[in-house]
Amino acid sequence: MLRPKAVAVIGASDDPVRIGGRPIAYMKTRGFAGPLMPVNPNRPTVQGLPAFPSIAALPTTPDAAIVAIPGEGAIQAVEDLGARGCGAAIVFTAGFAEVGEAGAAMQARLVAAARRHGMRLMGPNCLGLFNAALGYYPIFSASFEAGWPLPGAVGIASQSGAYGSHLFAAARDRGIGTPVLVTTGNEADTNLADIIGWMAESEEVAVIAAYAEGIKDGPRFIAALEAARAARKPVVMMKVGRSALGQAAAQSHTASIAGDDRVMDAILSEYGVHRARTTEELLDVCYVAQKRIYPAGNTLGVVTISGGAGVLMSDAAEAAGLPMPPMPQHAQDALRKLVPFASPLNPVDCTAQAFNDMSVIGSFAESMVTDGGYQSVIAFFTAWGGTPSMAPRLRAELKKVLDRHPDRLFVLSILANTDRVREWEADGFLCIEDPSRAVVALAAMGRFGDSFSNPPPAPDTVAPVTLPATAPNEAEAKRILAEAGVPMVPEAACATLEETLAAGRRIGFPLVAKILSPDILHKSEIGGVILNIADEAGLREAHATLLARAAERAPGARIDGVLVAKQVTGGVEMALGVVRDPVFGPVAMVGLGGVFIEVFKDVAFARCPVDPARAEAMIRSLKGFPLLDGARGRPKADVAALTQALVALSRFAAGAGPRLLSAEVNPLLVTQDGAFAADAVIEIEA
Amino acid sequence: MLRPKAVAVIGASDDPVRIGGRPIAYMKTRGFAGPLMPVNPNRPTVQGLPAFPSIAALPTTPDAAIVAIPGEGAIQAVEDLGARGCGAAIVFTAGFAEVGEAGAAMQARLVAAARRHGMRLMGPNCLGLFNAALGYYPIFSASFEAGWPLPGAVGIASQSGAYGSHLFAAARDRGIGTPVLVTTGNEADTNLADIIGWMAESEEVAVIAAYAEGIKDGPRFIAALEAARAARKPVVMMKVGRSALGQAAAQSHTASIAGDDRVMDAILSEYGVHRARTTEELLDVCYVAQKRIYPAGNTLGVVTISGGAGVLMSDAAEAAGLPMPPMPQHAQDALRKLVPFASPLNPVDCTAQAFNDMSVIGSFAESMVTDGGYQSVIAFFTAWGGTPSMAPRLRAELKKVLDRHPDRLFVLSILANTDRVREWEADGFLCIEDPSRAVVALAAMGRFGDSFSNPPPAPDTVAPVTLPATAPNEAEAKRILAEAGVPMVPEAACATLEETLAAGRRIGFPLVAKILSPDILHKSEIGGVILNIADEAGLREAHATLLARAAERAPGARIDGVLVAKQVTGGVEMALGVVRDPVFGPVAMVGLGGVFIEVFKDVAFARCPVDPARAEAMIRSLKGFPLLDGARGRPKADVAALTQALVALSRFAAGAGPRLLSAEVNPLLVTQDGAFAADAVIEIEA
Repeated sequence: MLRPKAVAVIGASDDPVRIGGRPIAYMKTRGFAGPLMPVNPNRPTVQGLPAFPSIAALPTTPDAAIVAIPGEGAIQAVEDLGARGCGAAIVFTAGFAEVGEAGAAMQARLVAAARRHGMRLMGPNCLGLFNAALGYYPIFSASFEAGWPLPGAVGIASQSGAYGSHLFAAARDRGIGTPVLVTTGNEADTNLADIIGWMAESEEVAVIAAYAEGIKDGPRFIAALEAARAARKPVVMMKVGRSALGQAAAQSHTASIAGDDRVMDAILSEYGVHRARTTEELLDVCYVAQKRIYPAGNTLGVVTISGGAGVLMSDAAEAAGLPMPPMPQHAQDALRKLVPFASPLNPVDCTAQAFNDMSVIGSFAESMVTDGGYQSVIAFFTAWGGTPSMAPRLRAELKKVLDRHPDRLFVLSILANTDRVREWEADGFLCIEDPSRAVVALAAMGRFGDSFSNPPPAPDTVAPVTLPATAPNEAEAKRILAEAGVPMVPEAACATLEETLAAGRRIGFPLVAKILSPDILHKSEIGGVILNIADEAGLREAHATLLARAAERAPGARIDGVLVAKQVTGGVEMALGVVRDPVFGPVAMVGLGGVFIEVFKDVAFARCPVDPARAEAMIRSLKGFPLLDGARGRPKADVAALTQALVALSRFAAGAGPRLLSAEVNPLLVTQDGAFAADAVIEIEA
Repeated sequence: MLRPKAVAVIGASDDPVRIGGRPIAYMKTRGFAGPLMPVNPNRPTVQGLPAFPSIAALPTTPDAAIVAIPGEGAIQAVEDLGARGCGAAIVFTAGFAEVGEAGAAMQARLVAAARRHGMRLMGPNCLGLFNAALGYYPIFSASFEAGWPLPGAVGIASQSGAYGSHLFAAARDRGIGTPVLVTTGNEADTNLADIIGWMAESEEVAVIAAYAEGIKDGPRFIAALEAARAARKPVVMMKVGRSALGQAAAQSHTASIAGDDRVMDAILSEYGVHRARTTEELLDVCYVAQKRIYPAGNTLGVVTISGGAGVLMSDAAEAAGLPMPPMPQHAQDALRKLVPFASPLNPVDCTAQAFNDMSVIGSFAESMVTDGGYQSVIAFFTAWGGTPSMAPRLRAELKKVLDRHPDRLFVLSILANTDRVREWEADGFLCIEDPSRAVVALAAMGRFGDSFSNPPPAPDTVAPVTLPATAPNEAEAKRILAEAGVPMVPEAACATLEETLAAGRRIGFPLVAKILSPDILHKSEIGGVILNIADEAGLREAHATLLARAAERAPGARIDGVLVAKQVTGGVEMALGVVRDPVFGPVAMVGLGGVFIEVFKDVAFARCPVDPARAEAMIRSLKGFPLLDGARGRPKADVAALTQALVALSRFAAGAGPRLLSAEVNPLLVTQDGAFAADAVIEIEA
């Protein structure tokens, strides 16, 4: 599909601006080397090429074919191509699953036809794709009127044809080379994950730009991201549908599965994907990523002729999580000798002094790399970078530094027209006019580096869990989760006073005692819960009181005895859960209990199973983490026990398989001395 | 200073690229009409103009003068200019307050010299300013090498010379006209607020772009913002120092006063200022604001040929708070008749059908304005807007709609080179390539409109408050605030059992009783607090118990009696406060008490006095507001009482004047039936 030698065009048009004509015009212009075989029953030639009346009449078996004929004809074409031994079809034809049920049925037949012959499909309802190095353009985008793809290494994979085409054109305008673009349309067979996976392995692509509305196959998607990471290829993604409004729009636009966007965020973050908020940000990150410099432990140095812009970049760096450590003192002293009123801390302001003596800028920049050790440097020189009287001298100074340190990222924030920017770029500089955007892109390079150098450990094998046939009651749920390693509040169901007293001695005071009856649902309403039992005498009294109250206030209820439980006091109330995401399977969540989750949405997600390092990172990412960490003079809670509980719950969910709909441990009380689940609910698919 | 007829240049240079030469070269080139008088004791002419050996020797009194000579000479020049009757001096000279104490002393003498003669100063240490219509360029920026200001109405006021110059140059590159730029440097006399205030009244300027590191004079700044709002001129501001890192950088860069950034945010929001996060955003907002269409109750309609981009814009609109209501059903039906597979909800996707028939786009856009009623429309046409075969037809279709609806904002998100963009702009369209940026800019227009049409009521006069000589104790603080209208928990200090019982009857049960002694600081440690007193018998018993415990556990302590207070249960714990901001004076804050403020930073600010509408808006802006509003099945708390308490506290602070350092009411318990302050602290300057 992506590197064919021979190509057929089913529904070939002689008109080079029609959908069936554009690919032929493009491939002729761009010198596609292999046989290019138009199929058209009505014409002997198409755009000057010999045409063939049918697929059967093709002189050579095509490796790939474009299908640009409507309706049933497209299905027949796929059938015929398959019979002929063609390996792949790119189906432009619309009117399939995107238009409703009848179309979906047609799409199923289209896929069945391809599968019968072991042929792969792109689309239907796709704009097509290109592989520029081969002059291979099975695509009907009009964007090539303004220019062909530039040489480079940013591959584009997009579920949307129009948006993918926009991204290609915008990248070209930015001078970003895009060797490959693939738009996946309805994804009846090949989907975005397949393309990302292919790009992870392909020589053409070093940076992967992706656009998605909904991910259809979670495991394939994750495998593709893992392949990209293993190949040290950054993935920069626009995943739309962040907001309620956006999700509604996405659902009206495609039939995409929109899971919880926070789950998507967690997955993308886990696999080191940069999720761009805007198209411009996506392009900025790809632009800088082209350098293939991904510094783990990235730091930013800023050299500027505007103190104000320095402050602005400091704000942006803090927001982006990119550290800006100060210059070492000896370097500050040396720079201050050079320029007395300079502010050489970081941002390093070389002041208007540089106006008269540009060598100052070279000295400052060199010191920032060698003394400051910054892996990323932004040089803010505004109009100087584009001014004829200044730009050449400035470039000469900075070029010396750049050449000495090819392992560093240098971004210039300058005002210059496109031609002058291209001159800077030809010298090896990166240019982003807006300094805040430069900061965001450089921060992304560091996160890529961190992700590449710290891949998560291969997931442990998780033992399969056998679930009961139906949803268990609370006691059973607690038993199941306790067995899975989620620490429960120690408790015992006691039929007799003797058992109650023995359980009290075993568990230790203070205790809670509750009446135990299948007929009493709201125990506290009949006074069936007694707290703060301090000693054995109290327990003895509580046992009697509970039975008496039950007899008096719930006559006729079956009484099984008394439940005795450790009374946990003073801990932080947490909530743990797992839910089955429609795309990614079981997803674990942790948050502070009560209002913190419900009102403040302070919760972290990750795919199950969660390893201890990620579990701890999830817990630490909570805004409310200081409450566990000794805020306001509290004792520090046992975060290790909480982490362990989260890991155990996530492994339980991973082992339980798709019948587990959800499991919730809420509250989990985390004290100085451990974590104690006080309630548990498990939902199972009937 | 800003519209002089005659100008002198002290320290004039014959070299047109030196600091003392550039203004002369610029003004000659741009045809400054009035006398331009170089002062230089060493030359008979400067750049072809007759030069004068001294200020005294000037043939005409200058209205304004540039001072570009170093150190003491600058002070003498200001003195001489003042003596000559010159109205204003723009002082380029550096080495004043920005370099430390000695410089600050020199600066004070500079100001004194000007004040003696009633002359205004700009700077010192400033880059200068320009007023393009007059050809008046007392400025040494090099940015003019790349081009002169374009005609237009965006005035730039900047505390930073380099950044202001950058902003001007970047605006010019964007095609934004900037008639006036003023950079204020050290602000020894004239400051940013003065310039904003001048621009609010000036005919040259319709939109004010401002850059600030620190505001020196809060009341002047606010008066300027009020003047701008009254003149319906939007203020778009880059206020740096958002982050801890940025504030540190700002302090090393200038000696700016960095108050709490959240206070600044609240002030800017209150006066309808758009605070831009990036330079690009600032320019985008100015660019769109040039149309002078500021729709109150703004709504966004999106017409697109990419469903994907539609989803992306929906996400961006939700994030920007810009509503995207759906098209009315009848309009949707009509559009679906036109294009069967169109998705006409909003975003309105006219699909690739438009590729063949551009009239579809005109019909869709017209329907969005007339049927959808959107005041803002984004049209996403990507490369179509720049493609020679499509752009003219597209422009013709959209131009018809634009011409019929000159009161609407149309932004095109297209990929096109600068020349083609200028063609669109010449037709009256706005072009912003990135659709997310277009959304942010349009959202700003709506907020300007809301601000212009809903100015806050003029503040009530606030009665002056007489503060005690020193900080009051808790009881005194409560009394003072209760008098000011902050509702306190009803309580009474009772010397005898009879008084205790009478107070109990008056306040109503349940009650809390506490031992009252100046010698017992930690009452609860000696059992000196009794809760849940349900009736008179209980109160009698509590009285005796408290006295007995005090006698036993704190022998020798002076006992004043018992404090009886209403026990407030079940309310939401809030915290109110006022602090004296160094720039803006007393600022009120409200948040949920305890961890919510300290850990979650969930707090809202506004300048005192706060009117009831703003107080309620502050309360509703809290993330935790649902807790007051009946979340999780709670009863709805008495938000009106909370609002009233906040208003009362803020009016107290406004009336108390600068001796009040802070006042805090924490907790304020808000129940269904009212708000009750349980503690109060007032800090007063000694």
